[in-house]
Amino acid sequence: MEKSLLVIHGPNLNLLGSREPEIYGAATMAEINARITERAAAAGFQVDCRQSNHEGEIVDLLQRAAGSRTAVILNPAAYTHTSIAIRDAIAAIEVPVIEVHLSQISGREAFRQQSLTAPVCAGMISGFGWRSYLLAVEAAAMLARS
Amino acid sequence: MEKSLLVIHGPNLNLLGSREPEIYGAATMAEINARITERAAAAGFQVDCRQSNHEGEIVDLLQRAAGSRTAVILNPAAYTHTSIAIRDAIAAIEVPVIEVHLSQISGREAFRQQSLTAPVCAGMISGFGWRSYLLAVEAAAMLARS
Amino acid sequence: MEKSLLVIHGPNLNLLGSREPEIYGAATMAEINARITERAAAAGFQVDCRQSNHEGEIVDLLQRAAGSRTAVILNPAAYTHTSIAIRDAIAAIEVPVIEVHLSQISGREAFRQQSLTAPVCAGMISGFGWRSYLLAVEAAAMLARS
Amino acid sequence: MEKSLLVIHGPNLNLLGSREPEIYGAATMAEINARITERAAAAGFQVDCRQSNHEGEIVDLLQRAAGSRTAVILNPAAYTHTSIAIRDAIAAIEVPVIEVHLSQISGREAFRQQSLTAPVCAGMISGFGWRSYLLAVEAAAMLARS
Amino acid sequence: MEKSLLVIHGPNLNLLGSREPEIYGAATMAEINARITERAAAAGFQVDCRQSNHEGEIVDLLQRAAGSRTAVILNPAAYTHTSIAIRDAIAAIEVPVIEVHLSQISGREAFRQQSLTAPVCAGMISGFGWRSYLLAVEAAAMLARS
Amino acid sequence: MEKSLLVIHGPNLNLLGSREPEIYGAATMAEINARITERAAAAGFQVDCRQSNHEGEIVDLLQRAAGSRTAVILNPAAYTHTSIAIRDAIAAIEVPVIEVHLSQISGREAFRQQSLTAPVCAGMISGFGWRSYLLAVEAAAMLARS
Amino acid sequence: MEKSLLVIHGPNLNLLGSREPEIYGAATMAEINARITERAAAAGFQVDCRQSNHEGEIVDLLQRAAGSRTAVILNPAAYTHTSIAIRDAIAAIEVPVIEVHLSQISGREAFRQQSLTAPVCAGMISGFGWRSYLLAVEAAAMLARS
Amino acid sequence: MEKSLLVIHGPNLNLLGSREPEIYGAATMAEINARITERAAAAGFQVDCRQSNHEGEIVDLLQRAAGSRTAVILNPAAYTHTSIAIRDAIAAIEVPVIEVHLSQISGREAFRQQSLTAPVCAGMISGFGWRSYLLAVEAAAMLARS
Amino acid sequence: MEKSLLVIHGPNLNLLGSREPEIYGAATMAEINARITERAAAAGFQVDCRQSNHEGEIVDLLQRAAGSRTAVILNPAAYTHTSIAIRDAIAAIEVPVIEVHLSQISGREAFRQQSLTAPVCAGMISGFGWRSYLLAVEAAAMLARS
Amino acid sequence: MEKSLLVIHGPNLNLLGSREPEIYGAATMAEINARITERAAAAGFQVDCRQSNHEGEIVDLLQRAAGSRTAVILNPAAYTHTSIAIRDAIAAIEVPVIEVHLSQISGREAFRQQSLTAPVCAGMISGFGWRSYLLAVEAAAMLARS
Amino acid sequence: MEKSLLVIHGPNLNLLGSREPEIYGAATMAEINARITERAAAAGFQVDCRQSNHEGEIVDLLQRAAGSRTAVILNPAAYTHTSIAIRDAIAAIEVPVIEVHLSQISGREAFRQQSLTAPVCAGMISGFGWRSYLLAVEAAAMLARS
Amino acid sequence: MEKSLLVIHGPNLNLLGSREPEIYGAATMAEINARITERAAAAGFQVDCRQSNHEGEIVDLLQRAAGSRTAVILNPAAYTHTSIAIRDAIAAIEVPVIEVHLSQISGREAFRQQSLTAPVCAGMISGFGWRSYLLAVEAAAMLARS
Repeated sequence: MEKSLLVIHGPNLNLLGSREPEIYGAATMAEINARITERAAAAGFQVDCRQSNHEGEIVDLLQRAAGSRTAVILNPAAYTHTSIAIRDAIAAIEVPVIEVHLSQISGREAFRQQSLTAPVCAGMISGFGWRSYLLAVEAAAMLARS
Repeated sequence: MEKSLLVIHGPNLNLLGSREPEIYGAATMAEINARITERAAAAGFQVDCRQSNHEGEIVDLLQRAAGSRTAVILNPAAYTHTSIAIRDAIAAIEVPVIEVHLSQISGREAFRQQSLTAPVCAGMISGFGWRSYLLAVEAAAMLARS
Repeated sequence: MEKSLLVIHGPNLNLLGSREPEIYGAATMAEINARITERAAAAGFQVDCRQSNHEGEIVDLLQRAAGSRTAVILNPAAYTHTSIAIRDAIAAIEVPVIEVHLSQISGREAFRQQSLTAPVCAGMISGFGWRSYLLAVEAAAMLARS
Repeated sequence: MEKSLLVIHGPNLNLLGSREPEIYGAATMAEINARITERAAAAGFQVDCRQSNHEGEIVDLLQRAAGSRTAVILNPAAYTHTSIAIRDAIAAIEVPVIEVHLSQISGREAFRQQSLTAPVCAGMISGFGWRSYLLAVEAAAMLARS
Repeated sequence: MEKSLLVIHGPNLNLLGSREPEIYGAATMAEINARITERAAAAGFQVDCRQSNHEGEIVDLLQRAAGSRTAVILNPAAYTHTSIAIRDAIAAIEVPVIEVHLSQISGREAFRQQSLTAPVCAGMISGFGWRSYLLAVEAAAMLARS
Repeated sequence: MEKSLLVIHGPNLNLLGSREPEIYGAATMAEINARITERAAAAGFQVDCRQSNHEGEIVDLLQRAAGSRTAVILNPAAYTHTSIAIRDAIAAIEVPVIEVHLSQISGREAFRQQSLTAPVCAGMISGFGWRSYLLAVEAAAMLARS
Repeated sequence: MEKSLLVIHGPNLNLLGSREPEIYGAATMAEINARITERAAAAGFQVDCRQSNHEGEIVDLLQRAAGSRTAVILNPAAYTHTSIAIRDAIAAIEVPVIEVHLSQISGREAFRQQSLTAPVCAGMISGFGWRSYLLAVEAAAMLARS
Repeated sequence: MEKSLLVIHGPNLNLLGSREPEIYGAATMAEINARITERAAAAGFQVDCRQSNHEGEIVDLLQRAAGSRTAVILNPAAYTHTSIAIRDAIAAIEVPVIEVHLSQISGREAFRQQSLTAPVCAGMISGFGWRSYLLAVEAAAMLARS
Repeated sequence: MEKSLLVIHGPNLNLLGSREPEIYGAATMAEINARITERAAAAGFQVDCRQSNHEGEIVDLLQRAAGSRTAVILNPAAYTHTSIAIRDAIAAIEVPVIEVHLSQISGREAFRQQSLTAPVCAGMISGFGWRSYLLAVEAAAMLARS
Repeated sequence: MEKSLLVIHGPNLNLLGSREPEIYGAATMAEINARITERAAAAGFQVDCRQSNHEGEIVDLLQRAAGSRTAVILNPAAYTHTSIAIRDAIAAIEVPVIEVHLSQISGREAFRQQSLTAPVCAGMISGFGWRSYLLAVEAAAMLARS
Repeated sequence: MEKSLLVIHGPNLNLLGSREPEIYGAATMAEINARITERAAAAGFQVDCRQSNHEGEIVDLLQRAAGSRTAVILNPAAYTHTSIAIRDAIAAIEVPVIEVHLSQISGREAFRQQSLTAPVCAGMISGFGWRSYLLAVEAAAMLARS
Repeated sequence: MEKSLLVIHGPNLNLLGSREPEIYGAATMAEINARITERAAAAGFQVDCRQSNHEGEIVDLLQRAAGSRTAVILNPAAYTHTSIAIRDAIAAIEVPVIEVHLSQISGREAFRQQSLTAPVCAGMISGFGWRSYLLAVEAAAMLARS
């Protein structure tokens, strides 16, 4: 199988750039996707970038990644804190999933401090803004080499 | 832009009239929509009434309201208490969102007493049955005048 | 009995206008009372506006409203979160009580997020600033018609 | 000092008879006071019956009972669960205070299950309706004999 | 059926007199039973006094009281706070059960502050030492008259 | 070893039929035992039905079932929520234990919502009234076949 | 109406057989559906088996079952613990819903121990692996006969 | 405006000297007031000392201090832990309020360990007995100089 | 009085050897009793070893130890965490009670981490398997010498 | 023994002046020490000012203060909320310890609201910025006079 | 390797004898060390006794014990309840560590009731005063023999 | 200033390789340091690697990094969950601090799930074993470029 990454952006991340930029930064999702694709190419990965506001759709995407992707980079956004379904999907598939957050969730509202998904991910990178995604590409490359 | 309202009914509100009428009243969703439309017309608003059982669809609807609606009237129903995704969508858009409940949620089961969405809404009206919606139309009119 | 409203402003609301205006707005209590009275007159109500910093006095006022008022509009302010006595008074009288808040209490300090009084009120309106009172007048009119 | 009892009825007990009779019974406060007075007379006590909706007034009454009363019978009603001030007054005076409740508070809403005042009272009698007061008179008589 | 009382002393109450007398007093269980019997006789009741350290035995005793006793006076002692089985037995039988405590349980260790049994009893009397039992006899007499 | 079932009814289940029939149904324990026996016979099981109000006795019964029974059907009733001793007995023996409840315990009082015993049972069936027992017989038959 | 069952498998159950088989067993969803269909046919039921990863879709399915199904067998999987929307749908329809779990959820992670849906279901069967579904068919047959 | 202090003693502090002297000391309120007055005079302050058992009255006193006092020294006593109304009054006025306690409240009963008022005060001094008041005078003098 | 020890084994300890040996070890209760007796004899103690699954029986045994035993060695097993009755019995008698556990209870399930009985025991020894009992004999000997 | 004060500054207080000045003020630790020394001299005290980032070192300093200092002024900073070791050291020595905080800790993050050390200190002064230290010198002088 | 014990006394234990002797006893640390050494010699152990107020130093000591000691006897004192670092050190080394406490920590303040270190120790002995250490020597000897 | 990194390993990380390798991996701290140094050199950084078991020493190291380092890579290990002092040091200095963990802390024991330090760090990387450090070097390089 060719080396391939699936990037999943969770709910409301399609509004990046205009949505509370003091928290989430000024880069749009399209710009971030371009930077991810460039970095991934340098590391020998094909990339597919998807966004969904639907919990069930993210579960579907994760299930379909099994057997076809080297790794998944997932920013579950709001579903980080509420979705056992996404957690179960991550635990059910073999593909390593790398959790990514733009902000430091542990420093925000109480209901945003716990990640239901992190315990079943291969690792987590948070707080570096859009750079978190690039570090996740780097992490995927390291995992693929090991 | 013409004055326009989006009314979003959350999960199971399409069953109004037959669903636990001692709590939710005997009026059907169609009847309530008719009364909303009448009242809104009197206040100079076009109205679009939508219902969805899907959290992600409600997020989609809210995102699309940005730039095209004067205000949104939202009864998040069950998602009031569990959806950070809807909360984030409300916070991300400029349009004022008015939260509406048929019953007094603070007097019901423990898991129904906290509203995740209320803190980012322009205001909340609850407990007046279907009249809560009409008061929300009134509130939207007041906000539009200010 | 003639149609008549009692408006009760709870503790520290006599300081409106100068008290933390970024939360409570710039209108004074007198100005708000004038707007309430005007709106109520249009709806055919006499209005009596009272303010008290004393929990017991608010209980007294509520008890006296029984039999003499069509409805009560109550902003319990700080007592919203601590007074079982006011809750019991509301539950004990027949007159419908409409709870009003200037700000969205669910988005403030933890000790301000629970309302002890709301579960026994006819309905609640919050977050619209001084307009919350006008919507409550509207609600009282709707209830009187039903 | 002649044998003398002070009976203090807390907030909203002046509405007894009409207030939620399925919980509090059909007897009015005046009727209950008459029965207390009769029973107390039989036990050789003068009785003074007072009602107040004001926490501070109940503190005042308790302080004044020091040195002039054989015992106090107190139904703190709503203040049972919220008033440290009344608790402190009971602890500060020498006169024994007997706490009385019409209903079984431990079987009601969560916020009504804890009594802040009971730990500093001479004893508590609850759940017997208006008979709780008569048993308290009996208790005061027993304490006076010991 | 003749008027008859069952008095049940819960675990460790057979040690009264020697067990932590600063909390429970100097009277032995036998002495207290004698005083109960005397008072009950004056009120026209036969009395049967029982003590058990076994939760199941107390359930058995309560079940057997159905149909043969006018009322039960129960000091559940340690089982007050842990026994749903005793609670269910009280709720299952028709006979009124009066809960009695020597001390004010609400002022003691955290694990002794909640009574599982009180919500299903006819009433509770606590804090008057051995006199709590005599007041319970009085209460039983009142209930029998009503 | 012949196929044999032990049915254990926990505390107060001997009162079935008269005890809060709106929750527990109108069938007596004897009638339920008859239906269990009939169903079990059809599935090739001998049945022994026992009831006890004593936690320790239920532990004794479970211990004795080891080596002599194919399965145990246990309704721990009140002890479901408080007995670590019964839990430990179930975990200590090899015989599969099937937990049964007449009502849906998760919808009742807070202290009845957690089952200490369920995690170490082979399975749980709840909410079907006396039919829960028949389904448990069916389950025992399935387990015996596997 | 002909006797008909709807079976709803919640999120990730389409992965059964390969997903954590030490917890969920080796049988695939297709195999389980075949066994359900066989058993149901023996009991005179038509069966329709559906799977969805989408909370909203499960709400839709439940709503459509009203008026057309004898009973619903529902394994809400991850949504058991987070979906008030599904709970509300179950409560809103007349059709009895039987909750099913493969594993004993009360013995798993803390966030999996509470079922939001169970209190409004007709009953619950858990812990018997794929046999839980067959017992649910049996339960549906019993309910249909009563 | 002349330099002037308002000292407010909360509920039950009028009983100082006789009330639990092992906690609160042997000095009476009158004696403490004399020492405060002497110290304040040395620092160039007029002093007005008030005591009230009424929460509402303390709110009234604080509101009236605005514009007429250099600083307020407040011992809220029991209301420290329960009064949001007093907290709101302190936050609403410009005058600096210095919170004073005779004992170390953080070392007492759980319900006395949290201060609702402290976060909005200029500072807090606790545990030094009546000397806490003199240190507060000193603090007021320092604040007036800055 | 001759030097004499009572050893009480709580519920399910009669199954030692076969019950979860990876936690509780392979030694049977009889073997452990033999080792205790040998060690105790060396220290000049007579020993009486008892086991019971009944909470009430353990209370009875403790009460009877008063006046006849030098010390009691108690492994309350499951009752460690739920029995206030056993705690009260220990506190009521003069004989020193030494609490013993085979495993380190603080490292096990949440409901096994708190000991209700330890605070009133003379000391606790845990985690050394059957050697915990021998160390308790040693402790009893030390206490007898002091 | 000559009158002598030990001032202990806890972790990170050596960064005062540059560290979050909007919370902690612009004065450096050296400047504050100079003001303390001046004020202490006026009150007849020698002063020794120490700073440490090490919990153990602060325990050492407190132990050495026993017998050689009139009083200790301690700002435990971060260790206020986490160090039982420092609490135990304060409780173990005879020297009175006065706890000092620059800010009002009760108004900050949840983990900063509880002081483990305050209950065993002679008193606490908080919220007056660097003036808190000068008031502590004053308090030490008062305590030395009493 | 020769048989050798390391005894580590945690913070403030160097003050034993003078520090709250009603809790910790009158023996000094030097006296206790002498008794430990004597007992250990009898059991064939060399002993090294250390005390430190520094969490990090205790971690260092534990790390150095690996490979050079037969067992460690550790009284973590205040760090029992707060130090994950010491817990991790115990878990990281092979040497068995025996936790010792002078008092029964489960009967003291809430923050002293949980031991973070006990779950990873070989066993715990508490409540026997200085004799706890001698029993720990005995335990070390038993472990060395096994 | 030349580009320079400080790497701080918290308590017990000097034992890496031998300490619970199934959690922390087989690489020793020296090996990890070598890999960090190599990667950092490639990115143009000098590196200084330090390890300490002492909370205070880590605070000292962080303070000294101010003004002399481009960034700090910190694995606070056990202190992640207990040290407000380290949190305050990170917040007080200008240098960006990158938090690193070998394992996914959110999936471990409850007391290891919260990070006190993460909210004030520039970002966090966890779960990738020793590769977490290399990703942190990459992150430091990205931050230095921005």
